[in-house]
Amino acid sequence: MKHSAGLVAPQSADFAEALTLKSGVRLPGFSLTFETYGELNAAKSNAVLVCHALSGSHHVAGFYDPKRKKETQGWWDNLVGPGKPLDTRRFFVVGVNNLGGCHGSTGPVSPNPETGRPYGADFPLVTIEDWVAAQARLSDFLGIDTWAAVIGGSLGGMQALEWTLAYPERVRHGIVIASTPRLSAQNIAFNEVARQAILSDPDFHGGNYYEQGDDGQGVIPRKGLRLARMVGHITYLSDDQMAEKFGRRTRNHKRSFNYDVEFEIESYLRYQGDKFAEIFDANTYLLTTRALDYFDPALDYDGDLQRAFRRAKADFFVASFTTDWRFAPEKSREIVYALLHNGLNVSYAEIDCPAGHDSFLLDDQHYHAALDAYLQGIKL
Amino acid sequence: MKHSAGLVAPQSADFAEALTLKSGVRLPGFSLTFETYGELNAAKSNAVLVCHALSGSHHVAGFYDPKRKKETQGWWDNLVGPGKPLDTRRFFVVGVNNLGGCHGSTGPVSPNPETGRPYGADFPLVTIEDWVAAQARLSDFLGIDTWAAVIGGSLGGMQALEWTLAYPERVRHGIVIASTPRLSAQNIAFNEVARQAILSDPDFHGGNYYEQGDDGQGVIPRKGLRLARMVGHITYLSDDQMAEKFGRRTRNHKRSFNYDVEFEIESYLRYQGDKFAEIFDANTYLLTTRALDYFDPALDYDGDLQRAFRRAKADFFVASFTTDWRFAPEKSREIVYALLHNGLNVSYAEIDCPAGHDSFLLDDQHYHAALDAYLQGIKL
Repeated sequence: MKHSAGLVAPQSADFAEALTLKSGVRLPGFSLTFETYGELNAAKSNAVLVCHALSGSHHVAGFYDPKRKKETQGWWDNLVGPGKPLDTRRFFVVGVNNLGGCHGSTGPVSPNPETGRPYGADFPLVTIEDWVAAQARLSDFLGIDTWAAVIGGSLGGMQALEWTLAYPERVRHGIVIASTPRLSAQNIAFNEVARQAILSDPDFHGGNYYEQGDDGQGVIPRKGLRLARMVGHITYLSDDQMAEKFGRRTRNHKRSFNYDVEFEIESYLRYQGDKFAEIFDANTYLLTTRALDYFDPALDYDGDLQRAFRRAKADFFVASFTTDWRFAPEKSREIVYALLHNGLNVSYAEIDCPAGHDSFLLDDQHYHAALDAYLQGIKL
Repeated sequence: MKHSAGLVAPQSADFAEALTLKSGVRLPGFSLTFETYGELNAAKSNAVLVCHALSGSHHVAGFYDPKRKKETQGWWDNLVGPGKPLDTRRFFVVGVNNLGGCHGSTGPVSPNPETGRPYGADFPLVTIEDWVAAQARLSDFLGIDTWAAVIGGSLGGMQALEWTLAYPERVRHGIVIASTPRLSAQNIAFNEVARQAILSDPDFHGGNYYEQGDDGQGVIPRKGLRLARMVGHITYLSDDQMAEKFGRRTRNHKRSFNYDVEFEIESYLRYQGDKFAEIFDANTYLLTTRALDYFDPALDYDGDLQRAFRRAKADFFVASFTTDWRFAPEKSREIVYALLHNGLNVSYAEIDCPAGHDSFLLDDQHYHAALDAYLQGIKL
């Protein structure tokens, strides 16, 4: 039987020591918001770190409000909990909001210790390497020398991969889902459109929008964020699934001959865009897309992924989805091939799921069965 | 030997009689800007109408300035001219700017006869059916009872298709390239993002931006148009071609850790967006994307394309490109299948060209050879 991880609450860890980022910028101390599910065993051998993707957070599973369980549920609740693939009766699972995020960890909205006002545009660009370095500090804080597994989908998968390269001794299993070893030109192009939408929004104020407005209470570059999310959403769904879910269905039989919502897909995109603009921070969106663009573990190896992966020691589970055109199976196969070249123990599942890139978030039967089988095989 | 159609100049035709649009709105008189190449024969049997796509115009071939031939060249110059597939020694070729366009024909920027000021937001939404009805008026004006062929790519292909349905007696060959019988949910989604970018630009002023600004000289919703074009461009190119043309190439080896242009694909998209915002009208962009969304010849036939095409009498040449993910070959096959079902004479070429949707504009050898072979077979 599957159960919920139950009522959970976020925690915070403060790190006083400065962190020198990949850009060379020195970030003076920071804090990370995290959550845990299950219990760390005496040998500290059952810890699993869940890395989040663009719109995720530390709130992976369980709920915040017993009266509003569904609305306050974690983003990977279908995967994490008692009896679920990441079984919290067996694993101690940790979710963490990334550095530069907007869900509690130090980020652009946090006060800049130098000025006492929000960092805004002065928050430094962080990379996936920086995120992993910050997560390593959290591991120390939690007393976890070695993760049984580091797992993530999409951008989270890149972090899992980076963990196995940056800290090969500290992660036993890398679980990389719906991910890619580096963005394609098309991937970067979509990110660039999203960034330009935000950067060109008059309410962006060069990133310092937190104290703008007539009353100095801050404004939101809502139009830009909304467009960024809309264009993102198109790439998260498959063409086929969009056709099935929305097709050419219209609100009314008669055409309205204006630019109001006419087709259901328009309504869906606007809703998703509006909702996102309410809850997400524009500066975090910008730096996250840049972190995605920059990630390229093979860059220092003349683009050779096989050489880049020579450092890795973990076992791997890699999964991709046939209808994912954002990070197509071909990209996962590149990862698998380069890992195998280095004699590593790799399981790979190419899942036939209609939901496109977003499949990694869904409770697809074959996907969860494959992941469950792999996770059960992890020795504690 | 292939030659240029040479120095050309646009002409204009005025139509005093009102046109009742598909929306029911009555457009009081209008004018169309057009160009011609070659000569109409005595039997008036050699006329070919070229319909343009989103960013095209009546300026199909030849040039406007002998000193700036390349810069002032028509958009399908590689196809139209002496010795080219649409050979102007044999055919009388006509290009026309669509109603609602921004290259001379009556459109949002034209004066509204009721007010003497630019139509702006009051210019009615036009459909592909309306465009074809207006083009039929131009045919009368030119004394052309029957077109030897009506040809177009993408949105232009939809017009060619509509011609064969609305005026089956007036077109002998329908040539439909890189097109689709109706947009998919994903197609509409991309259009919607583009529209929202324009509609939410503060400089859009609800469509009445022509007389805004401090001096009343007008402003341009540049940011919105730019974003619309950027997102459009991503869909015009194939993933593979983008990878080949731009890949992950950066301007500098060292990362800049900011949001300036870093990858070449960013530079390309910004350039395309900026250039487009200088020359194109935002209201025309909006109404053109809506015309695309609305086109659905099977709508009145319960979605049944075979029944919808029962009216058609023309012969057809249909072409698609393997790497076109905007209007994939599958969509052209739907057209071909439904035409064949009605016993029509259909040639179909599925061209293996790496350039994605934009292939229809390029001088691909196999594409032009197939088109040339078909056009040579047209009896005059």
